[in-house]
Amino acid sequence: MYTPAIVFAREKLSIIDQTRLPRRLEYIELHSIPQTCTAINQLKIRGAPALGIVAAYSLYLAAKTLRPARYELFKKQLDDSYRRLLATRPTAVNLKYALDRMKKIYNNPDGHNISRIRKLLLAEAREIHLQDHHACQQIGEHGLQLVSNPCTILTHCNTGSLATGGWGTALGVIYAAVEKGYKIHVYVTETRPLGQGARLTYWELLHNKIPCTLIVDSCAGFLMQQHKVDLVLFGADRIARNGDVANKIGSYSLASLARVHRIPCYAAAPASTFDLSIAAGKQIPIEERNGKEILQFYNYNNNLLPFIRLYNPAFDITPARLLTGIITDQGIIKQPLAGEIKKLFKSN
Amino acid sequence: MYTPAIVFAREKLSIIDQTRLPRRLEYIELHSIPQTCTAINQLKIRGAPALGIVAAYSLYLAAKTLRPARYELFKKQLDDSYRRLLATRPTAVNLKYALDRMKKIYNNPDGHNISRIRKLLLAEAREIHLQDHHACQQIGEHGLQLVSNPCTILTHCNTGSLATGGWGTALGVIYAAVEKGYKIHVYVTETRPLGQGARLTYWELLHNKIPCTLIVDSCAGFLMQQHKVDLVLFGADRIARNGDVANKIGSYSLASLARVHRIPCYAAAPASTFDLSIAAGKQIPIEERNGKEILQFYNYNNNLLPFIRLYNPAFDITPARLLTGIITDQGIIKQPLAGEIKKLFKSN
Repeated sequence: MYTPAIVFAREKLSIIDQTRLPRRLEYIELHSIPQTCTAINQLKIRGAPALGIVAAYSLYLAAKTLRPARYELFKKQLDDSYRRLLATRPTAVNLKYALDRMKKIYNNPDGHNISRIRKLLLAEAREIHLQDHHACQQIGEHGLQLVSNPCTILTHCNTGSLATGGWGTALGVIYAAVEKGYKIHVYVTETRPLGQGARLTYWELLHNKIPCTLIVDSCAGFLMQQHKVDLVLFGADRIARNGDVANKIGSYSLASLARVHRIPCYAAAPASTFDLSIAAGKQIPIEERNGKEILQFYNYNNNLLPFIRLYNPAFDITPARLLTGIITDQGIIKQPLAGEIKKLFKSN
Repeated sequence: MYTPAIVFAREKLSIIDQTRLPRRLEYIELHSIPQTCTAINQLKIRGAPALGIVAAYSLYLAAKTLRPARYELFKKQLDDSYRRLLATRPTAVNLKYALDRMKKIYNNPDGHNISRIRKLLLAEAREIHLQDHHACQQIGEHGLQLVSNPCTILTHCNTGSLATGGWGTALGVIYAAVEKGYKIHVYVTETRPLGQGARLTYWELLHNKIPCTLIVDSCAGFLMQQHKVDLVLFGADRIARNGDVANKIGSYSLASLARVHRIPCYAAAPASTFDLSIAAGKQIPIEERNGKEILQFYNYNNNLLPFIRLYNPAFDITPARLLTGIITDQGIIKQPLAGEIKKLFKSN
């Protein structure tokens, strides 16, 4: 049904260069940590779960290339790669989740056998990938119970196969409903400044022949006012212990507007997106990106550019109280979110 | 202080071609009704009050060019120009307001003296222009009482000298406050799909050296959440009898978010923007524009274009209850708006 964003085969890591979409579907290979870091910074690959998977494979490839004299050197070099990958983007916690799993492997080396560590690192990266694939399926299955038939769903940014190791989180729910034969219509917000909705989600849905309509971000409220939206679904880059959700800028406005219009609004994310070390959304670091991302279409004269101030946070925080719930691979977390999150992660 | 969008001098009508901004400040002449209609359709000139002024001058120029044998033919041809100008854009009522004033002149011809009618039409067009200029001043003066010092104001689309015959409506309030020495910071929403905020408002404020920061539309809620906005100000394209306001798409979301965050939110408009023939916002026709305006940046392959659905309403409706009030040239209309509007227009 979908085109995978990340392919690891024959010891090569390939990703779709998402900056070329929708014009071109083009895979590029990532051979080194600097290449992966650049690809992540430039959003050639993005989406919280996808970032974790790519980081894990990259760390494995780094481990494979290294020819250290001793284990300590090997570990030191991997620690360096770990840090560089982690530093690429601050908000999505899946990056840290995946890298920590990899670190645990190379930090706990039975007998410090480097060739054995390499094998274990590959197995772990594959496992992270596979688990995310499976989590997406589960999210779709659980989310299905929230979808009516027919249903008009509004979604933001990209949360599909381009953002994950499977068919997606919020989009996974949509794919699951379509697979079940539900009559779905999707309103896709363009998601300024980088157009992940217009370029990526719309492209995915188009290729899967799912009826969808593209709107500008600021049209979402007007659609809700006209009773044209049954359900709001978006993803998450990090979820705090209390259920506050960091996600693409604009998610907070959508959740606020959904509340005003009494439309159910859910974030969808695998367990790896929860950061239990963080009590509330306020503590989640929000990445501020270069304002040129906003300005690029507007053709200002170069001599004016130094005088133009831009504020370009890539994410915002939706407080737990504005969400009807969170769709996870473990089931749907309902209100009160904080208590339910605690229960869920205790039982695991 | 400002660059006028419309200049009528030596019997020539010139406008800034706003599609060239911010790259170039370039005036173009409008010689004929078809030229004016195209300029309006392509948004070379836009902004409700500015549309009325340009339409009035264009009708005068048409009257001047016509060489009719009899008054009846003259009137018939002007009626045709009236209809063509009116049909350019359905939402902004100022177009009808100005054209109706011009029609009243040529419909009420003392002695059917065509040369005299021409003179009266010119005088009326000048009067419409001058009155709007004055109305902007008054809006600024009245609006001043709503502005604290210092004040951070969020505004949407363009409501400045590029949109009116003066220094603007919502921007007029900002200019008035700056002139008074207030410390103002303006957050400018880019206003997708056509970027009137990013291209026009930001350019105006930059040229007037007023501190301002550009954001994507969907960042407004996040700013409010962070207590970074003291006041929300936007313009209006048509205001119904009950105080419902049609304005640039996204205004409704901003007003809703302002309400959620308990931030005062005002529309600013001259009396000519009120349409007392319309009871409520639902009856205001909302212009739906070509979806290509949204898609133009996203580089889809031509073979996919026929399959892409877009919904591109240029305006939305903010219900009266979401506004703290409306700033007019006659004073500030407070809640309950319907009653206050009735009073205001009765006394006129």
